[in-house]
Amino acid sequence: MSTAAIAATPRPPYYAVIFSSLRRDGDADDYAVASERMLELAAQMPGFLGVDSARDTDGMGITVSYWTDQAAILAWKRHAEHAAVRERGRSAWYRDFSVRIARVERAYGQGEDAQR
Amino acid sequence: MSTAAIAATPRPPYYAVIFSSLRRDGDADDYAVASERMLELAAQMPGFLGVDSARDTDGMGITVSYWTDQAAILAWKRHAEHAAVRERGRSAWYRDFSVRIARVERAYGQGEDAQR
Repeated sequence: MSTAAIAATPRPPYYAVIFSSLRRDGDADDYAVASERMLELAAQMPGFLGVDSARDTDGMGITVSYWTDQAAILAWKRHAEHAAVRERGRSAWYRDFSVRIARVERAYGQGEDAQR
Repeated sequence: MSTAAIAATPRPPYYAVIFSSLRRDGDADDYAVASERMLELAAQMPGFLGVDSARDTDGMGITVSYWTDQAAILAWKRHAEHAAVRERGRSAWYRDFSVRIARVERAYGQGEDAQR
């Protein structure tokens, strides 16, 4: 699963949840369905700003979701369906993972001033 | 190009550079060589803590590099060979990209307390 375009986020500051994971071999379809569903749910949460996601053919994946503030991240973390899928993911889908919560301080893109 | 394991970073705070990009169709070998070389150079920079990277088959890629502080990020940005490759990347390799510099405030992984 990947996003088709890079997330368009507002000017910083805002927050990022950096989720890195290594997939186990296993049910790819099951994972893809859950993954799409989580994106759909996250996008409905207050404070959601966007998401970028990529997964290599060798199982390494990175999903970065963007949020207005830490309260929005906490609310998403506590969402019941998200929590249930997360638990399943930890035991069934991932060999290893890491979650990092970070405050975005600066950002620039194609055609923008890289000195910012 | 992807990293084989998730970066082992110290306890926060530290900094992350989140680089999201959409590849153009083109010279994949050329890109892979430059990409490997950049990882090699970055790893030699003072303040480098690690990197995670994944690219989808459809061209969406995310590379997150981790650094002790903003000064280390700036020094890497100013590295002459990195700057040259970056310029090339912007014109030749990427349809779109985004760079976000963020301060990692909390982190946890497999088997660690998710409440932190």
